[in-house]
Amino acid sequence: GFARVDVAREARQGLPEVVYGSGKTPEQVIAIVRTLLRHNDGPVLATRVDRDVAASVLAAVPDGSYDGAARLLVWRPAPSTGFGVVVAAAGTADLPVAREAAAVAAATGLDVTTVTDVGVAGLHRLLAEQDRLRAADTVIVVAGMEGALASAIGGLVACPVVAVPTSTGYGAGLDGITALLAMHASCAAGITVVNIDSGFGAAMAAFRLARVAGRTT
Amino acid sequence: GFARVDVAREARQGLPEVVYGSGKTPEQVIAIVRTLLRHNDGPVLATRVDRDVAASVLAAVPDGSYDGAARLLVWRPAPSTGFGVVVAAAGTADLPVAREAAAVAAATGLDVTTVTDVGVAGLHRLLAEQDRLRAADTVIVVAGMEGALASAIGGLVACPVVAVPTSTGYGAGLDGITALLAMHASCAAGITVVNIDSGFGAAMAAFRLARVAGRTT
Amino acid sequence: GFARVDVAREARQGLPEVVYGSGKTPEQVIAIVRTLLRHNDGPVLATRVDRDVAASVLAAVPDGSYDGAARLLVWRPAPSTGFGVVVAAAGTADLPVAREAAAVAAATGLDVTTVTDVGVAGLHRLLAEQDRLRAADTVIVVAGMEGALASAIGGLVACPVVAVPTSTGYGAGLDGITALLAMHASCAAGITVVNIDSGFGAAMAAFRLARVAGRTT
Amino acid sequence: GFARVDVAREARQGLPEVVYGSGKTPEQVIAIVRTLLRHNDGPVLATRVDRDVAASVLAAVPDGSYDGAARLLVWRPAPSTGFGVVVAAAGTADLPVAREAAAVAAATGLDVTTVTDVGVAGLHRLLAEQDRLRAADTVIVVAGMEGALASAIGGLVACPVVAVPTSTGYGAGLDGITALLAMHASCAAGITVVNIDSGFGAAMAAFRLARVAGRTT
Amino acid sequence: GFARVDVAREARQGLPEVVYGSGKTPEQVIAIVRTLLRHNDGPVLATRVDRDVAASVLAAVPDGSYDGAARLLVWRPAPSTGFGVVVAAAGTADLPVAREAAAVAAATGLDVTTVTDVGVAGLHRLLAEQDRLRAADTVIVVAGMEGALASAIGGLVACPVVAVPTSTGYGAGLDGITALLAMHASCAAGITVVNIDSGFGAAMAAFRLARVAGRTT
Amino acid sequence: GFARVDVAREARQGLPEVVYGSGKTPEQVIAIVRTLLRHNDGPVLATRVDRDVAASVLAAVPDGSYDGAARLLVWRPAPSTGFGVVVAAAGTADLPVAREAAAVAAATGLDVTTVTDVGVAGLHRLLAEQDRLRAADTVIVVAGMEGALASAIGGLVACPVVAVPTSTGYGAGLDGITALLAMHASCAAGITVVNIDSGFGAAMAAFRLARVAGRTT
Amino acid sequence: GFARVDVAREARQGLPEVVYGSGKTPEQVIAIVRTLLRHNDGPVLATRVDRDVAASVLAAVPDGSYDGAARLLVWRPAPSTGFGVVVAAAGTADLPVAREAAAVAAATGLDVTTVTDVGVAGLHRLLAEQDRLRAADTVIVVAGMEGALASAIGGLVACPVVAVPTSTGYGAGLDGITALLAMHASCAAGITVVNIDSGFGAAMAAFRLARVAGRTT
Amino acid sequence: GFARVDVAREARQGLPEVVYGSGKTPEQVIAIVRTLLRHNDGPVLATRVDRDVAASVLAAVPDGSYDGAARLLVWRPAPSTGFGVVVAAAGTADLPVAREAAAVAAATGLDVTTVTDVGVAGLHRLLAEQDRLRAADTVIVVAGMEGALASAIGGLVACPVVAVPTSTGYGAGLDGITALLAMHASCAAGITVVNIDSGFGAAMAAFRLARVAGRTT
Ligand SMILES: Nc1ncnc2c1ncn2[C@@H]1O[C@H](COP(=O)(O)O)[C@@H](O)[C@H]1O
Ligand SMILES: Nc1ncnc2c1ncn2[C@@H]1O[C@H](COP(=O)(O)O)[C@@H](O)[C@H]1O
Ligand SMILES: Nc1ncnc2c1ncn2[C@@H]1O[C@H](COP(=O)(O)O)[C@@H](O)[C@H]1O
Ligand SMILES: Nc1ncnc2c1ncn2[C@@H]1O[C@H](COP(=O)(O)O)[C@@H](O)[C@H]1O
Ligand SMILES: [Mg+2]
Ligand SMILES: [Mg+2]
Ligand SMILES: [Mg+2]
Ligand SMILES: [Mg+2]
Ligand SMILES: [Mg+2]
Ligand SMILES: [Mg+2]
Ligand SMILES: [Mg+2]
Ligand SMILES: [Mg+2]
Repeated sequence: GFARVDVAREARQGLPEVVYGSGKTPEQVIAIVRTLLRHNDGPVLATRVDRDVAASVLAAVPDGSYDGAARLLVWRPAPSTGFGVVVAAAGTADLPVAREAAAVAAATGLDVTTVTDVGVAGLHRLLAEQDRLRAADTVIVVAGMEGALASAIGGLVACPVVAVPTSTGYGAGLDGITALLAMHASCAAGITVVNIDSGFGAAMAAFRLARVAGRTT
Repeated sequence: GFARVDVAREARQGLPEVVYGSGKTPEQVIAIVRTLLRHNDGPVLATRVDRDVAASVLAAVPDGSYDGAARLLVWRPAPSTGFGVVVAAAGTADLPVAREAAAVAAATGLDVTTVTDVGVAGLHRLLAEQDRLRAADTVIVVAGMEGALASAIGGLVACPVVAVPTSTGYGAGLDGITALLAMHASCAAGITVVNIDSGFGAAMAAFRLARVAGRTT
Repeated sequence: GFARVDVAREARQGLPEVVYGSGKTPEQVIAIVRTLLRHNDGPVLATRVDRDVAASVLAAVPDGSYDGAARLLVWRPAPSTGFGVVVAAAGTADLPVAREAAAVAAATGLDVTTVTDVGVAGLHRLLAEQDRLRAADTVIVVAGMEGALASAIGGLVACPVVAVPTSTGYGAGLDGITALLAMHASCAAGITVVNIDSGFGAAMAAFRLARVAGRTT
Repeated sequence: GFARVDVAREARQGLPEVVYGSGKTPEQVIAIVRTLLRHNDGPVLATRVDRDVAASVLAAVPDGSYDGAARLLVWRPAPSTGFGVVVAAAGTADLPVAREAAAVAAATGLDVTTVTDVGVAGLHRLLAEQDRLRAADTVIVVAGMEGALASAIGGLVACPVVAVPTSTGYGAGLDGITALLAMHASCAAGITVVNIDSGFGAAMAAFRLARVAGRTT
Repeated sequence: GFARVDVAREARQGLPEVVYGSGKTPEQVIAIVRTLLRHNDGPVLATRVDRDVAASVLAAVPDGSYDGAARLLVWRPAPSTGFGVVVAAAGTADLPVAREAAAVAAATGLDVTTVTDVGVAGLHRLLAEQDRLRAADTVIVVAGMEGALASAIGGLVACPVVAVPTSTGYGAGLDGITALLAMHASCAAGITVVNIDSGFGAAMAAFRLARVAGRTT
Repeated sequence: GFARVDVAREARQGLPEVVYGSGKTPEQVIAIVRTLLRHNDGPVLATRVDRDVAASVLAAVPDGSYDGAARLLVWRPAPSTGFGVVVAAAGTADLPVAREAAAVAAATGLDVTTVTDVGVAGLHRLLAEQDRLRAADTVIVVAGMEGALASAIGGLVACPVVAVPTSTGYGAGLDGITALLAMHASCAAGITVVNIDSGFGAAMAAFRLARVAGRTT
Repeated sequence: GFARVDVAREARQGLPEVVYGSGKTPEQVIAIVRTLLRHNDGPVLATRVDRDVAASVLAAVPDGSYDGAARLLVWRPAPSTGFGVVVAAAGTADLPVAREAAAVAAATGLDVTTVTDVGVAGLHRLLAEQDRLRAADTVIVVAGMEGALASAIGGLVACPVVAVPTSTGYGAGLDGITALLAMHASCAAGITVVNIDSGFGAAMAAFRLARVAGRTT
Repeated sequence: GFARVDVAREARQGLPEVVYGSGKTPEQVIAIVRTLLRHNDGPVLATRVDRDVAASVLAAVPDGSYDGAARLLVWRPAPSTGFGVVVAAAGTADLPVAREAAAVAAATGLDVTTVTDVGVAGLHRLLAEQDRLRAADTVIVVAGMEGALASAIGGLVACPVVAVPTSTGYGAGLDGITALLAMHASCAAGITVVNIDSGFGAAMAAFRLARVAGRTT
């Protein structure tokens, strides 16, 4: 009734549909997850799930696990593919979004490292992580406020950079709109951007990259 | 004097700095291009160059070529890497941006195919191109107005999708802002977005992808 | 005192004034509904009514019914006119708005079918419903995020399409503003748009259509 | 090459694709119009065509006519269907948009009457036209500035009302954005809205209405 | 300490400073009101005061009265000046703002009549009040949504019209911004506008008018 | 044909309709002006008229005069009523708008004084004009940039203050939007605001005030 | 783990990193404060700390103090430098921000005086403080609504003026955006602006000034 | 007549009023400059003056000089004060604004060095200039696009940083609004911001700093 689960997505795109948990009842999440587990073979994920909803769902559908910091439910995580993703978060306020990105990417088989609190107000912190950043196959940059970290990293590394603006900060930050616009206007060439606070979107973009790089099935 | 050419960029990112021609005099373009040709080995490009400026520059710096539709000057184009990029343009008004994307990508060694006039108002046109889109290593979607093509293609293909909102259309299109926001709010997971009208940005993003996919030097 | 009920609206427009329940006390709703029932003959509706207010009103004014999902109170629903409306909702988050549209349309005598979860990220789901959509006299498209479903359906069917942007989604969705703008900038010709989250407005537009099509009294 | 004419649109939607002339060369318009005339049977239109482009196109493609006020080219106009559309323009500055609406609607077989300069600052002018408005099958309201005419007419007539915000006015009118938002927020129920300055869009919406009302083939 | 009461305002502008109650503690309101009562002779008002704060203040400062609908505290109301103000509210949702305007105006000596639920969706309701509106010395128009009532009244009456946009409505109403912009873009000449939801501001504007019209001391 | 001149406006509002010259041909202005001169008795004005259009109109319609700085055409100016208006302009860039306000007000019988270059960056200039401002029946404040002059004058004088935001300035001034918003958010009570650059609107508001103050016929 | 404290900031900029308390747990604040106290010598501050978090932190880290009005925690406040800062607040609603500015500035060794309720609606209050303002080494202006106080003070004093827009007010104040834009568009030359509600930012700017003026170590 | 030159500004603020040349005729500039030269002793400047206007003014008022890149006219430049300002421009497109800042600062007695093309996309270029930046008494950062340079420099230096957003770039840069907002949301503490493209405003802010630092008369 309420949903038309896209069970063909796995065949089309290499990954089952991911459940968007926000606003769904435990019963709705349970029903969709069961359908996906039955008709698909790969990892089944539900994002933006609060702790109490997660508990109800895990009680009903066995073999899942919950990452509270990422607000993510996972069944059948993918084995590692060796595709290296560095998630770089500008400040501690950006961590929830960084964790969603990291957890979703890990559940789909990417090798994730997280680098935190490397905002451009103290460039030495970022420069100290240059080697780790340059060794990545893809960097996901998570930054609110003015989003300048995306430009700085975009100029340091050669690999794909996916920028996630966050709604942290206040006033002129406009709940992430300023960071989103700034990342688009960035002077560093070839950076791409996803929606505000969408750690999920960035991880999905990295998954697409990993596939084309031949390191996922 | 007026510029500090980043000649180390080729070592850092695999491609020399690209000259942003808008607002520069022929003399300025000539000086920067000469510096890049001298200190770097790879392709040298200048974007957003009008026909008359292009003529002056080509007269002064030998062995370049000009693509008027893309407003691009190129010296020492890269040999083909076999990384397949499909540039899909929603309507004929989006062609100038699509051509900039295609020409920059080609000059950096990517194999480009262009698919035009596949807007979602006539889905059969898009569906008729499914095989070509699915065979791509990366799809660059160029669309103005409501930008819905990015969502439709994002759901059809498994590879990375880089969306370029364009400033075509009028009224509620807000000179590309509506398409940019809509592409970010897209229901298709893992799409990434670059700046309005930035065919250049999309091509640079594809170049980063190609490198990580191991198909460029 | 507080209200000047437009009892002449039924004579002017074929339907009594509809009560906008938001912010009204049960006493106010009761008073207006009684006035409408007394001075008019057709269906009497109150929208945006919460469950507890609804209970008080139903207790005071007999023969009404309440649809909790649509938050709608109805007295004297109109008999069916045979005018077929399909309400197509992009995702499960759009269901509350879709249900308001469906319930208001049904109460005014239209024949409503609802099609859910047909977002453009999985076009096959939409294409599978083509026949049902093409058989409609009018399609109401309910979609948040980027609103692309309106363009896709607008290109598939020949009948009137009324698009309702919803405030679902986050970040760049701007609480429905992005979908509203995108639907206006749509590349599909002849689509019309109503206010964000206004299932009511779309149903009223469909009622006007049904009248001119000669299938209502 | 540059275009993929949607020649199947006539079968799907009862009207051939309409050419958007803005930004197209005479050669492009000529090529598309010829394709449409050859593969379709119904009226062929090109909107937003300037006088000099129109002259070149008419010289190359026989039997067309040009309406300079509407900036419209038409071949094979449809015979009258008897479906009555009133185009009501708030002020003289709204006339170009009103004329596009009227000319496109007439070319597709609708019976158009135009009522001008009936802005709400002098309500008696509007009230004097009530009978004509009430006799319409559909009213297209064309208004800039604050767009209040749409609410006033929406409350007077029972038939479908399609509102076109225009970019006339200055300052707080925000080039039509204010009128567009105001029309959406209208207190008159069941009004629908199209893009700023889109007389074309309103006419296409009316054409869809006429079809469902059974008065077109 | 926390405040520098402008006790000279009465001498300068004919009315003591009005206390803005929002965010002030009962103690702060009490202190300021006492200062004003002591140093000034005219009416002392505090706006935006919630019921519980009002109770505390009235208990501490004798001879005041509280109007809950207007959220206004008043001491020493001015005697009537005979200057006639009509407050016209578009819908029932606009009543709180209308009541603030009416109560402040009355407390400063204006003769206030309130006309409610005269929105333009049912013009006959407005036209039925024409005589009352035309007899006014000033009309305060309170309207949310699209704010069209200001234009309609602006064209009907010859006296000053002060428009107050309200934050009622949803979606495209943008919390009153749309009504504010629309009232400024109004086609009716000589309308003036105050801040969103500022019944207070409109009443103060009317007070200035009454003074210049020679009917206040 | 193109216009429906509101010749009843003079009876309704004490002043004939004013022609909005922007975008009108000389022929259109001539026709409307003739109609107004024939059917009305009071002053006939046309605003926003460029010098060359003015010359053609004056040649065709005798006894008019043109004020180039105000871009205003006037026939049959009203005799003085003794109602004193001070037009205060913040800077020299605001003069064109100030002159439109002054010329329209004078033509309708108000006694106008203009005070220029009294921006708040040099308060002594404003304070030096206090007596003149306090003697006014109404002050029209014309200011761009941050519009602070409206607040300063609003606090100095007791009479009605009509603020006109102007589009002067650059960057964060947002073509007058910033001044318009700032004037609404002003801390000075009872200020009212008209549209950006609308010297005309402010003068019309003053005319309404003068009427209610009993000093016009 | 969660944070990379920038302990080198004191060496680089003369002041340890300031902890941004918003959204941090007491444990996180405690850990960072301990690190800063251990590795740095100067004042350690945490801003935007609620009363209950403050209590937990003070219990765990000795010798700190909490200023509830400023929501600031301080350890090792700097000795006075003699650099005189006047914090001028427009209204009482601006006091929380003014207090953050004053408390941060004092903790870093500046000599702070606070002047309150000097909004431009009563210029005499501001002029009465002229001497105190002119004696300052720097003025921090804290103002919401239309922000006009920044322009007025900018024109009165010769020293640096740092303006802090606040989110006080309603409607057209747009939560501080209007004041921010207005302060930028100010007609007073050489004013600088910091983020909305950022008393902290203004104090930090003043600290930088004091250092260059040679009055801090 | 048209201007009220603020000749007391020099006494109040240490510098004569600066003429804003935009939109002024040569005659107007000449008159104001003569007044300032006569009544004041310090440097007289006119900003935003085009080459042809400059020529006329220089011919009429002896002993001035014109800087075409800065569009600045100067008479009686101030002797050097030894206060060191570094103007750092992100890209070559930002040079016109940087030059206005540098020329105005120099004319008021500051010692200016300009550092160009140090955008964050190539951080080594910026780091190579660290010593020069750290030696400055004040840094003026001129940057368009995403404005990230302000954050990077704000974290490197201890002195005051005045950021000037520029309108360079396209699309999401929103003509400088994005850079302005981003600079306000910056993670580097104590940065202040002036209006878009206002090299003048930044120089004036630096002049105020220099005065308080005791290095100007
Ligand atoms: N959900 C709704 N959204 C927008 N307008 C509505 C809604 N429900 C009723 N209305 C309109 O609101 C008006 C009634 O408002 P009121 O007089 O406040 O009850 C009627 O004219 C309806 O057309
Ligand atoms: N400068 C102006 N700004 C705004 N409205 C104006 C102006 N001049 C005239 N009007 C109004 O425009 C209407 C006339 O428009 P129109 O019928 O197009 O000439 C009249 O109702 C006037 O009140
Ligand atoms: N109230 C505040 N507003 C803005 N930034 C702040 C505030 N308090 C501290 N900061 C900055 O925030 C950074 C610390 O953030 P965090 O590492 O999350 O504690 C420091 O670099 C400070 O400069
Ligand atoms: N480029 C500029 N941008 C902004 N304000 C300026 C500029 N140049 C001069 N001003 C200011 O404009 C005022 C002079 O304006 P005006 O009286 O019209 O010449 C002075 O107070 C200056 O502070
Ligand atoms: Mg789904
Ligand atoms: Mg460069
Ligand atoms: Mg009602
Ligand atoms: Mg086409
Ligand atoms: Mg006060
Ligand atoms: Mg007219
Ligand atoms: Mg930190
Ligand atoms: Mg001046």
